[in-house]
Amino acid sequence: MKPVFSFDVVLPTRGQGTVKQSLYQQLRSAILDGRVAPGTKLPATRQVATGLGVARNTVLAAYDLLIAEGYVIPRAGAKAVVADVTARRSRPVRRSSAAVIANPRMNPLWLTPALKRETRRKLPERSFRLGTPEYRFFPHDTWRRLSARSLRSFAKRPFTYSPSEGVPELRAAIAHHVAFARAVACTADDVIVTSGAQQAFDMLARLLVVPGRTKVAVENPGYPPLRSAFLAAGAELVPIGLDDEGMRVADLPDDVNVVSVTPSHQSPTGAVLSLQRRTELLDFARRRGAVVIEDDYDGEFRYGGRPLDALQMMDRDGSVFYVGTFSKSLFPALRKGFIVAPPWACDGLINIKYASDAHSDATTQSLLAAFIHDGHLARYVQRMNKVYAARWSTLLEELARLDSWLQPIPSEAGLHLAARIVDPGLASTVISLAQEHLPGTQSTMAYSRTPLKHQALTVGYGVVETNEIAAAFKGFRRALASAKVRTR
Amino acid sequence: MKPVFSFDVVLPTRGQGTVKQSLYQQLRSAILDGRVAPGTKLPATRQVATGLGVARNTVLAAYDLLIAEGYVIPRAGAKAVVADVTARRSRPVRRSSAAVIANPRMNPLWLTPALKRETRRKLPERSFRLGTPEYRFFPHDTWRRLSARSLRSFAKRPFTYSPSEGVPELRAAIAHHVAFARAVACTADDVIVTSGAQQAFDMLARLLVVPGRTKVAVENPGYPPLRSAFLAAGAELVPIGLDDEGMRVADLPDDVNVVSVTPSHQSPTGAVLSLQRRTELLDFARRRGAVVIEDDYDGEFRYGGRPLDALQMMDRDGSVFYVGTFSKSLFPALRKGFIVAPPWACDGLINIKYASDAHSDATTQSLLAAFIHDGHLARYVQRMNKVYAARWSTLLEELARLDSWLQPIPSEAGLHLAARIVDPGLASTVISLAQEHLPGTQSTMAYSRTPLKHQALTVGYGVVETNEIAAAFKGFRRALASAKVRTR
Repeated sequence: MKPVFSFDVVLPTRGQGTVKQSLYQQLRSAILDGRVAPGTKLPATRQVATGLGVARNTVLAAYDLLIAEGYVIPRAGAKAVVADVTARRSRPVRRSSAAVIANPRMNPLWLTPALKRETRRKLPERSFRLGTPEYRFFPHDTWRRLSARSLRSFAKRPFTYSPSEGVPELRAAIAHHVAFARAVACTADDVIVTSGAQQAFDMLARLLVVPGRTKVAVENPGYPPLRSAFLAAGAELVPIGLDDEGMRVADLPDDVNVVSVTPSHQSPTGAVLSLQRRTELLDFARRRGAVVIEDDYDGEFRYGGRPLDALQMMDRDGSVFYVGTFSKSLFPALRKGFIVAPPWACDGLINIKYASDAHSDATTQSLLAAFIHDGHLARYVQRMNKVYAARWSTLLEELARLDSWLQPIPSEAGLHLAARIVDPGLASTVISLAQEHLPGTQSTMAYSRTPLKHQALTVGYGVVETNEIAAAFKGFRRALASAKVRTR
Repeated sequence: MKPVFSFDVVLPTRGQGTVKQSLYQQLRSAILDGRVAPGTKLPATRQVATGLGVARNTVLAAYDLLIAEGYVIPRAGAKAVVADVTARRSRPVRRSSAAVIANPRMNPLWLTPALKRETRRKLPERSFRLGTPEYRFFPHDTWRRLSARSLRSFAKRPFTYSPSEGVPELRAAIAHHVAFARAVACTADDVIVTSGAQQAFDMLARLLVVPGRTKVAVENPGYPPLRSAFLAAGAELVPIGLDDEGMRVADLPDDVNVVSVTPSHQSPTGAVLSLQRRTELLDFARRRGAVVIEDDYDGEFRYGGRPLDALQMMDRDGSVFYVGTFSKSLFPALRKGFIVAPPWACDGLINIKYASDAHSDATTQSLLAAFIHDGHLARYVQRMNKVYAARWSTLLEELARLDSWLQPIPSEAGLHLAARIVDPGLASTVISLAQEHLPGTQSTMAYSRTPLKHQALTVGYGVVETNEIAAAFKGFRRALASAKVRTR
């Protein structure tokens, strides 16, 4: 639906021509310059005449001129619309894409493939995609009610900028939440609100990386957008392999300055970093003066076993940055995350946030603070924990029936798991059949910077119900069975 | 008001000790580690018992142990609260600030004074501060209504990430808005939504600066947070002086790669970049292959004269980036701005946005799109234009009565103006009296990287009514008059 546009016409001062001419010329150049798209309705002549304080006939005459020259198309009984005059435009550069690649005026970094944004694949609404949480049980009514409350209280205050580190009530609510839900040691002063985990990674990259000097160890396979943030800051990335205990900490080269890790639930394999490895990692950080980024993107959801404390909790040297997000526990469109930072780093991080975008939008921050403070987050996480646990266990049952093909990597948390492909020679068959029958699944290769000897299949259960899981796996099993017959 | 906390206790498996011990140990370490603040209420024993499925006496016994050891303080007839055990904590690094400065693990850039965030001065609610718009006439009801509508429609859709460049309806609404309100030549494809103008500057800095190589000309005096963004990206800044026609374009050194300018309303002097200078600037960009950033932060508000077209509109070489924001036309807490970019730069900018924070929060984007689409922005700007015009003209009248002290720099737009101090020898007297009687006013020195021969006084009229202006100037005039007597 195209809106009728309103416009701003400068009327001629004495001796500069007629009102009709001015109107005509200004509208024509707006159309010619592409400032108004083809198909846009012109405002009613009566309305324009009143708005400008001129006679309606004058406006009609200007419109007629535009119609006569083909800039505007009259429609019987309806508002005239703007014609498509693309061909008549004289601007040589705009919309021409000849110069898109490698324009010498930009930093070529941003056109390198490693920094290309991910285009999200088109998938059915219910799929095995990673990183998308369920939406069906979200307490939208409560959210709307708190939003209205936050906006009503906002309406009583003068407009102003708010603190770069986040509004105080949200920092306090987050500190409280992570202290108990995730065993993170912090107070409100240690919390910096960010626009999602991605901004946290970006800010940490800017804080910790000296371009060309800093080496950052990343899990391989690992989360690509985190790599983007560090590459953009000029870091050298050092990919570190994984096994069922998570990152192989012993493989860390001594000269690494930053280690990024997903200890609660590795992204994408789902492995948990073992206690042994955690201790080794913190020892490494202490010995080498390195820092650790603990990316805890979906650790709220846990389905058994004894959870390990957050790495941050075990840190006695101010080496660990804990990154949390509400993209999985609430919803990604919210774009709210946070860093729990050691004291030496807070000031620098707040300066970075200030230079990056001043602060995150304040009314949404207040809304989120109220949602957490009033206990809705805790309740929702509890509820979803049951929902996801049922899916997780259904998925494990289904995978158990395919154990000659796929062996799940132990994982008791989050919204996805991965299953190793038993026969590397059949990896491409398994992956392609999986993508056909379990849309959204992927090879861990999609998360890797180097070829992987053993590929695994990532399977998300954020947006797929237990019965949908069972139905999809039925088809997948059949397909695998007939593939087996063919390959014999 | 401290919330009661909810918590997560791991019950012992067989042979690992009693439930009472587990509860006691886990609560104690939460308190000792500072994960729960002094004064926090413990949840009711009945509630904990039910939640964990254990006997209430067990919980009572664990609480008693904590009380006996002084971790918890019982209160008659009320919930027990957590004691202050700061002194008992064993963590050596947290909360100690010895290592705050120059921790070798961070990029020292972020502790340089030039990148220090601005701390906003405490000022009365009504003041002459720059950059804060009026809040009294904002259509809060409409905003709330559209917010509810946006959230209702959001509730019907599955959760997902949204495009980094912005939601389509907001890009379209912005393109429409700037085409007509600001004579900017663009379509929705040219618009990239940002979190306020500051993120636009940061993204442009990252796009355009090759660290150590790129020279960026900035207005001097000029907007400090823009400088921060470019310094952070590794640019060399080249300050360019101003006069009543805006930036002295003839002073641009030939090797400048980027020129940042506020042509509609210089920040902070209020000068308009003359047509002559605009043409020269675009010529410079063409000749030198430079790009121009047009920061149009408050150009919607205009009080007379014939406005000049946006620089972007005159550009035929794809040299101009137009940066807009809703921080002045709506409110700063919204954190919504945008870049209208030449086609060669869009892809790079979207990659930057993706690496920076994935995208801006989507529900607020939809709300803003509806607000613009339904004509509320245009109406509100029109209304506020009248409000600000009255203040602007009152301010000019008041300044006219002080023309032996202050001479306004010609300015017919925006939310502030500046007045040159006639006698440089009396600058500090004028500034200090102004700050006493016109709170929020400042010397243009606060915006300058170099000493200024002629200081001017910046006076905002975003949050001060005409009668408040008149009253404040009355006091200021008297104070200046007695200062004159004293200095004779």
